[in-house]
Amino acid sequence: MPDRQADGQLEGRRRVAIEDVTPEIDCGRFPIKRVVGDAVRVEANVFADGHDQVACRLLYWQDSRNLLTSPMVALPNDRWRGEFFVAKPGQYHYTIEGWIDHFQTWRSALMKRVAAQQNVNVELLVGADLIEEAAGQAPPKNAELLRQWAKRLRDAKDKPEGASVALEDELLGIIQQYPVRNFATRYEKDLAITVDREKARFSTWYEVFPRSCSTQPGRHGTFRDCELVLPYIASLGFDVVYLPPIHPIGKSFRKGKNNSTEPQPTDTGSPWAIGSTEGGHRSIHPQLGTFEDFKHFRSVAEKQGLEVALDIAFQCSPDHPYVREHPEWFRKRPDGTIQYAENPPKKYQDIFPLDFESPQWRTLWEELKGDFDFWIDQGVRIFRVDNPHTKPFAFWEWVIGEIKAQHPDVIFLAEAFTRPHVMYRLAKLGFSQSYTYFTWRNTKEELTDYFTELTQTEVREFFRPNLWPNTPDILSQILQAGGRPAFMIRLILAATLGSNYGIYGPAFELCENVPIQVGSEEYLNSEKYELRHWDLNAAGSLSELIARVNRIRKDNPALQSNSTLRFHPTDNPSLLCYSKVTRDLSNVIVVVANLDCFHTQSGWVNLDLAAIGVAADHEFQVHDLLGEGQYMWHGSRNYVELTPESLPAHILRVRRLVRTERDFDYYL
Amino acid sequence: MPDRQADGQLEGRRRVAIEDVTPEIDCGRFPIKRVVGDAVRVEANVFADGHDQVACRLLYWQDSRNLLTSPMVALPNDRWRGEFFVAKPGQYHYTIEGWIDHFQTWRSALMKRVAAQQNVNVELLVGADLIEEAAGQAPPKNAELLRQWAKRLRDAKDKPEGASVALEDELLGIIQQYPVRNFATRYEKDLAITVDREKARFSTWYEVFPRSCSTQPGRHGTFRDCELVLPYIASLGFDVVYLPPIHPIGKSFRKGKNNSTEPQPTDTGSPWAIGSTEGGHRSIHPQLGTFEDFKHFRSVAEKQGLEVALDIAFQCSPDHPYVREHPEWFRKRPDGTIQYAENPPKKYQDIFPLDFESPQWRTLWEELKGDFDFWIDQGVRIFRVDNPHTKPFAFWEWVIGEIKAQHPDVIFLAEAFTRPHVMYRLAKLGFSQSYTYFTWRNTKEELTDYFTELTQTEVREFFRPNLWPNTPDILSQILQAGGRPAFMIRLILAATLGSNYGIYGPAFELCENVPIQVGSEEYLNSEKYELRHWDLNAAGSLSELIARVNRIRKDNPALQSNSTLRFHPTDNPSLLCYSKVTRDLSNVIVVVANLDCFHTQSGWVNLDLAAIGVAADHEFQVHDLLGEGQYMWHGSRNYVELTPESLPAHILRVRRLVRTERDFDYYL
Repeated sequence: MPDRQADGQLEGRRRVAIEDVTPEIDCGRFPIKRVVGDAVRVEANVFADGHDQVACRLLYWQDSRNLLTSPMVALPNDRWRGEFFVAKPGQYHYTIEGWIDHFQTWRSALMKRVAAQQNVNVELLVGADLIEEAAGQAPPKNAELLRQWAKRLRDAKDKPEGASVALEDELLGIIQQYPVRNFATRYEKDLAITVDREKARFSTWYEVFPRSCSTQPGRHGTFRDCELVLPYIASLGFDVVYLPPIHPIGKSFRKGKNNSTEPQPTDTGSPWAIGSTEGGHRSIHPQLGTFEDFKHFRSVAEKQGLEVALDIAFQCSPDHPYVREHPEWFRKRPDGTIQYAENPPKKYQDIFPLDFESPQWRTLWEELKGDFDFWIDQGVRIFRVDNPHTKPFAFWEWVIGEIKAQHPDVIFLAEAFTRPHVMYRLAKLGFSQSYTYFTWRNTKEELTDYFTELTQTEVREFFRPNLWPNTPDILSQILQAGGRPAFMIRLILAATLGSNYGIYGPAFELCENVPIQVGSEEYLNSEKYELRHWDLNAAGSLSELIARVNRIRKDNPALQSNSTLRFHPTDNPSLLCYSKVTRDLSNVIVVVANLDCFHTQSGWVNLDLAAIGVAADHEFQVHDLLGEGQYMWHGSRNYVELTPESLPAHILRVRRLVRTERDFDYYL
Repeated sequence: MPDRQADGQLEGRRRVAIEDVTPEIDCGRFPIKRVVGDAVRVEANVFADGHDQVACRLLYWQDSRNLLTSPMVALPNDRWRGEFFVAKPGQYHYTIEGWIDHFQTWRSALMKRVAAQQNVNVELLVGADLIEEAAGQAPPKNAELLRQWAKRLRDAKDKPEGASVALEDELLGIIQQYPVRNFATRYEKDLAITVDREKARFSTWYEVFPRSCSTQPGRHGTFRDCELVLPYIASLGFDVVYLPPIHPIGKSFRKGKNNSTEPQPTDTGSPWAIGSTEGGHRSIHPQLGTFEDFKHFRSVAEKQGLEVALDIAFQCSPDHPYVREHPEWFRKRPDGTIQYAENPPKKYQDIFPLDFESPQWRTLWEELKGDFDFWIDQGVRIFRVDNPHTKPFAFWEWVIGEIKAQHPDVIFLAEAFTRPHVMYRLAKLGFSQSYTYFTWRNTKEELTDYFTELTQTEVREFFRPNLWPNTPDILSQILQAGGRPAFMIRLILAATLGSNYGIYGPAFELCENVPIQVGSEEYLNSEKYELRHWDLNAAGSLSELIARVNRIRKDNPALQSNSTLRFHPTDNPSLLCYSKVTRDLSNVIVVVANLDCFHTQSGWVNLDLAAIGVAADHEFQVHDLLGEGQYMWHGSRNYVELTPESLPAHILRVRRLVRTERDFDYYL
């Protein structure tokens, strides 16, 4: 339908069209994501019939009673661009307003008439009218000034200097402040932005099982034990410590070691089999400690710069109180039993899924939201959500929306390893961060294609990747086969390709790489089913490398976001080269990685110098922040050689030579 | 917002997501276009949470009380495709409905369970319940049948053949007819289709000035004179005869020959300077004849298969009755004069534009709609709209919408030669056909890029190109420089690249190619400003070539649409090769054109055999419908040689050898 007036009537004089607005996710159905302080760059096709000049601006707001504006400038082919910054967490909105700029249309026609030496007497009168119209919008002082200009134009009629008066810059400077926006078109949609705190964009995660933190092998670890490990985690440079579910564990159909269906009485069970007579999702496993202990743990963590993230897994062991108290939330089979989890032919009798098709879905949703609220009340602000792709999309959109309306600082990480559209849908409808396919992307082509999709397409507007080289569920084939060099390179890739990344430790830094069987991604003696005891000081630990890489991330803002990621060609398929920069180019990082875990690889990288802010004939230094080398590079082609065991990658800070007029030059 | 129930309440059990529907223009803001009998192929991402199987279907309708449906089938990666056909002119709508297919989910799980040799007793009971649910939707006979199947499953419990009963094809065949669509998701938008009559897609235009049709040089031609030319136009194979404005022509500021501002008293003026004391847009220029004459002309034309198209140019000469009767529809200048048309520094004092920013825009709109209605009452169903890009978009959307609601058979051709987004916008908001940049696209790269954009991107859903090698306003540089061979090749390109094309004749077939001055695209002695007399039998006329090409277009349905256009590589930059096919591949045309108007060019074409329905090892003949040659081709690489003066192009009909089991083979 054509544009309507506020009263629903057609307004036929609204002549500006606004099309193809970016960013806009699924026709505005979903918000884009930003963090506090980010820029939002908006583009659109804005044009009108005929040859009149158009003008447009961005409107944006957190509170619709307080509209903010930002100018837009013309690009080629009727495209316009503008930008604004988001200052606070919560929801923002933006849209575009366009109108015919009659003054500029008149002014540029006047210049052509003057160049053609035409009589412009009537034009000066037209201009005077336009200036007076603008005066009607100006505050008294400038209104008076504009009226004087209008008079000058009228008086200049028939005088040789008439047109030059009209074209004076001073007049333009004043009148541009008071554009007449009659019959402006407002873009038909208000587009939304979810603004998170900075950690949504830049975070470094360490997953640890508290029950394995005991100082004595065989004893069940407690929060107090785990506190003793926090200084180690902090010293490695992490800022999020993520705990698998900390709730009571079911006893019925409990799994034994290595996922055995014949457990021993001493077996601890999987933390994801949530709920027992001791409680459910709002209880703490008694062997880990009390709520007081949890609070203490959280405060000790925070003092070391570690924020605690909890696992939210909406599923129940057969012993969960819900099973008894709310049988309506579970599906009954025709034989009267409750439907357990299955992925035929596999059966998971220790897990009852919740039935989101239950007629009582409303009370179920409220209850689950209550679980989040409960832990938010306990001070938790980061949730790693287990298997969100097996619960309805509408539930997540609702629950995340409700929670973030109250607590815009809450961060949700979606642990969905599933089909692409499902992963993206979960991100669109509210998850702040998402697990990715990085875990299985190993070759140069795979990494280039995937990270180009994640960072250079519309996906980057709503999907924030969080890269994990391993998880308790996934010991990838490359880690199994590649040994310590594989752990090194996968850590470096995760930490530099993704501004958000994490490891499941200490299995990771200790290079634990034996699967339960050939071809499986499950760990042998997985911590999911038994207590483990880790020697954090073991020889060969990657703790020093990890600490160094995390320090580099903290020191170099270029690595704290993904939007500038660019891949650069190399002449060796085992060498991957990419760069990240800050907006102002004050921090420029180039990574060159040897993807071959077994052999030294060498070759030439062919840098896109424009992407790293270096002029073609510019000398520049690269400082290897990982290997300590410093090299003087020149031009785009440069040689590298990387050895898996010692230096599988360069993380190069680019320093451009700044030539001064005085007697010293320096590198920026 | 999550999906809502009909009553606006959230329905949390609606689990299916529907995304990225194609075709969908600007988020459904504009309709796609089709002609009667066309297929509409729709795709979407359709998926749900978890591992349940989804199903979906297309809904489409002309009248929303009579929904039609069409099945969709799964493609890789959660994409689905369906198709339906549009039978009648007017507006159609379509959307998608998706749901969880619990029966199929159960059935495929059962197959896995059987393969794993599990006990499936409870599963059979689950299946029986699902079958009974489906029975509730079936008509009595099949409902009874389904209940018997449910009973068979229940009875098969504990029997070895239990699962095989459940998996019988017969059961599947019945139950698939009655899918249970509980909590189905309907896509949030109803998308629109404008269905035109076939001529919107396939038409062949001849533009002629009736006033130049007199048999005596110097005498003003009449409709009766023009009738005598109709058999000639028909013999050339055209089916639309388009007349420039036939209204009274203004006298004030009338332009003389060659656009002179100093006319002689005998000068006829431009037909686009509409209106005089003799009338305006609803009057006929007295020297052309009467309404009775026009009616006669139209009926003579129709008998020869020629439909009459009129020019609608919404602008007025200073003598137009509107100027006196409706001064409120024109813009006044401060000196009291009416603003004439300008494109500074150029001035067109013989034309007053209508002021669409007038406060009286509503009465203006109604009046202009009345102009269309008036000529529709006179039997006209095709309008070539002059400069629509200088009138507001909202006006066109309204006026075309109103008219097509009453008269879905009316065709509007937009004569907008302007910036890309503006051209596309006009097409989106309702114009049935559009002039294009073809007139200035000459090289292989230009033609390939432009026609790929027009036919292989979303543009093809709303923009129907109408290709003109010349118009009264545009004598292109290539025609000026390239002489007769240029006219030949431009005709062949227009007629085969575009299912809609036209020429401005007889200037075209007589190869009129002298501009008013070097560097100009204006004709010398342009018919716009004076009567011309054409010798239709002049030596060198292209009439035979044109008749032949138009015959080929009529005989070969592949050339009657654009959607299958594919370009094929050649090893010579002057050789352009492309193909068009019918949906069923029964008609396959390959065109090879020499774009060089001066030299014979030869080289190898490298056919994409799949695009023309030929297997890699298949022999095939090509029959040159233009040059009469027949060639046996084999494989993708084939040699061609084309000479500008004699045979600048092959229009090849591809005939595939059909091997039979009997003693003769034949070519299809």
